[in-house]
Amino acid sequence: MTSSVTVGSVVEVLDAVRARVPLVHCMTNVVVTNVTANGLLAVGASPAMVENAEESADFARIADGLLVNLGTLSRERAEAMPLAAAAAREAGTPWVLDPVAVGALAFRTTLAAGLLEHRPDVVRGNASEVLALAGAAGGGRGVDSTASTESALEAARTLARSTGGAVAVSGPVDLVTDGERVVEVRNGSPLLTLVTGAGCLLGALVAACAGTGAAPLEAAVAATGILTVAADVAATTTTAPGSFAVALVDALHTLQGPDLADRLVLR
Amino acid sequence: MTSSVTVGSVVEVLDAVRARVPLVHCMTNVVVTNVTANGLLAVGASPAMVENAEESADFARIADGLLVNLGTLSRERAEAMPLAAAAAREAGTPWVLDPVAVGALAFRTTLAAGLLEHRPDVVRGNASEVLALAGAAGGGRGVDSTASTESALEAARTLARSTGGAVAVSGPVDLVTDGERVVEVRNGSPLLTLVTGAGCLLGALVAACAGTGAAPLEAAVAATGILTVAADVAATTTTAPGSFAVALVDALHTLQGPDLADRLVLR
Amino acid sequence: MTSSVTVGSVVEVLDAVRARVPLVHCMTNVVVTNVTANGLLAVGASPAMVENAEESADFARIADGLLVNLGTLSRERAEAMPLAAAAAREAGTPWVLDPVAVGALAFRTTLAAGLLEHRPDVVRGNASEVLALAGAAGGGRGVDSTASTESALEAARTLARSTGGAVAVSGPVDLVTDGERVVEVRNGSPLLTLVTGAGCLLGALVAACAGTGAAPLEAAVAATGILTVAADVAATTTTAPGSFAVALVDALHTLQGPDLADRLVLR
Repeated sequence: MTSSVTVGSVVEVLDAVRARVPLVHCMTNVVVTNVTANGLLAVGASPAMVENAEESADFARIADGLLVNLGTLSRERAEAMPLAAAAAREAGTPWVLDPVAVGALAFRTTLAAGLLEHRPDVVRGNASEVLALAGAAGGGRGVDSTASTESALEAARTLARSTGGAVAVSGPVDLVTDGERVVEVRNGSPLLTLVTGAGCLLGALVAACAGTGAAPLEAAVAATGILTVAADVAATTTTAPGSFAVALVDALHTLQGPDLADRLVLR
Repeated sequence: MTSSVTVGSVVEVLDAVRARVPLVHCMTNVVVTNVTANGLLAVGASPAMVENAEESADFARIADGLLVNLGTLSRERAEAMPLAAAAAREAGTPWVLDPVAVGALAFRTTLAAGLLEHRPDVVRGNASEVLALAGAAGGGRGVDSTASTESALEAARTLARSTGGAVAVSGPVDLVTDGERVVEVRNGSPLLTLVTGAGCLLGALVAACAGTGAAPLEAAVAATGILTVAADVAATTTTAPGSFAVALVDALHTLQGPDLADRLVLR
Repeated sequence: MTSSVTVGSVVEVLDAVRARVPLVHCMTNVVVTNVTANGLLAVGASPAMVENAEESADFARIADGLLVNLGTLSRERAEAMPLAAAAAREAGTPWVLDPVAVGALAFRTTLAAGLLEHRPDVVRGNASEVLALAGAAGGGRGVDSTASTESALEAARTLARSTGGAVAVSGPVDLVTDGERVVEVRNGSPLLTLVTGAGCLLGALVAACAGTGAAPLEAAVAATGILTVAADVAATTTTAPGSFAVALVDALHTLQGPDLADRLVLR
């Protein structure tokens, strides 16, 4: 069985990130700002965190991609996020919604529903979050999923059809769909679950890939492939999470197209 | 002289953390969110940062343990913290107060006094902070203690009796008391003082240990023992703080019961 | 050609930081709080992050140095920063302004103009930011400079004359001026641009150096020299950004006067 997105197109997106250095506007949670910025720099993109209501819409217009991540939600960010998402949609800046812990908490579930009206190019979440966002019962407990990736596939397809973009469901096997096509990315290390912000970084990498002009499905598959292959490389050097986090950033920087093509498993 | 908390019970708490994976609700400062989350993940707990007034009380009810840390205090967190502490107390979620820089700054000293009314299961601070919180003259200068650990012991006992919980005073030798019993933990490296957030991480680890059902004194001693022994292990690999911070997270992950039992010195 | 600031005076400032352990009050962005605190601890200073309007002015009075960094600007910090800057000026606490992304965004450009009235002892920025702050057209795109360091020199001199302090323009070659004298620091690795917060950490190190009593020009040159030489040392151990960030903190801690004197190139 072959994937509808090719390994070659993932390599092309990586090359495009390094050639174009997309400016990625990140509105993300306070736990992962640092690893998000360093991961983006390592892969070759240019991160900028702008989060207030006075500046976010303006910045979303000039950025190449926008990430809206709902972790550690503050009122000020909750106010600024719809403004930024609306500006991104209007200006044609591709934007990514990461619905952290949606379903578990009412305040952000309501906010996420409103953000969906600005039709994110890509939604990236775990199974519980995607189920909750699609209106099904998610049942997440905190930030970790209690549902399997496969169980969220139909919800992901429905969600993708309603936004007109792509939806990426992260898990042991990552699923990405645009509502019709479904791509499985079969890379990645269990160590990714021991480093805070790996999923959040993935959302930022999707925004970077989409910022090169790649279509939503291609961008989401490329970012997932780049991060999980970098994790595979990093996991060859260590089995402990502190040194793995360092090696992951190193691997995002040193990863080259041929090695990515060799290791990436799509279906 | 033997300790009233045994090395064996500390090992049991570590095993319980890994078996039960307590969900630890962290309301903490922006400097240490990342190392707190990574430290909790490394030891085997599940961190979640939820800080706004709309969600914190709900989340404190479903979490296994709650940390309230007063560093980099914002108005929004200052508003949310009493709601979360009250909900934790009502729901039976054990909670930990880390009174960062209390005594040096009036705004947070007033907030901390109000939080005490919700009777934290454990207070974790340095000597200056514990003295200030107990109503004595703390005299801290910024976030570092200017008082000795021993000088804070009577204040810690008084404070523990008033909350009905335990108080941990961090320093070269760590003291933990429930108002009657006093346990000294004689592990730890001076490198811990060169890595920001080691004390803040300790507060989070106390919440994780208490989240397994351990009593306040046992939880505070176990968390202190786990962190300081992990620091001893990390200090065997490096003498510089950047690599020590990485090695500390690694050691929290790889630390096993027998090694913990071998290295831990309680009195 | 010899520099108006000597290598020997840079070594003296490093020694003074370690002898006096200046308390550095940091009001900085959420991306770099951790690396800022760890970098200050590593070099021998004492960091404290206090950011709210209730506490910042009081804390600026008791600190030895203050950093005001405009990254990830929130309303609460935007309100607190002028209070802290005014208190620092009044109390004689040297303070450093890092005008992150000024010029690109109107909200913070207005804030920065107001902060200049409290006459920062040192302004530290990239060329675009310094040009924008001096009233010229900066044209920054996000947080990265689109102008050359040399092109910002006249703006830096004008700005320094108006504040009565020093201005440091970061780039491949760092320029520092007090309006009359100009010092070039010719150290540093391209890896610094791949680690988020290197420039922000530099601002904090300037505040630490100024907190020892060094004059603005001497403090800015010393901090720039210490950070870029530490980067040179770190770059001897790795070519990838994740491990470089760790090695940089290590090098800030292990750097000794003779090695600093050997490696530092001033003009």
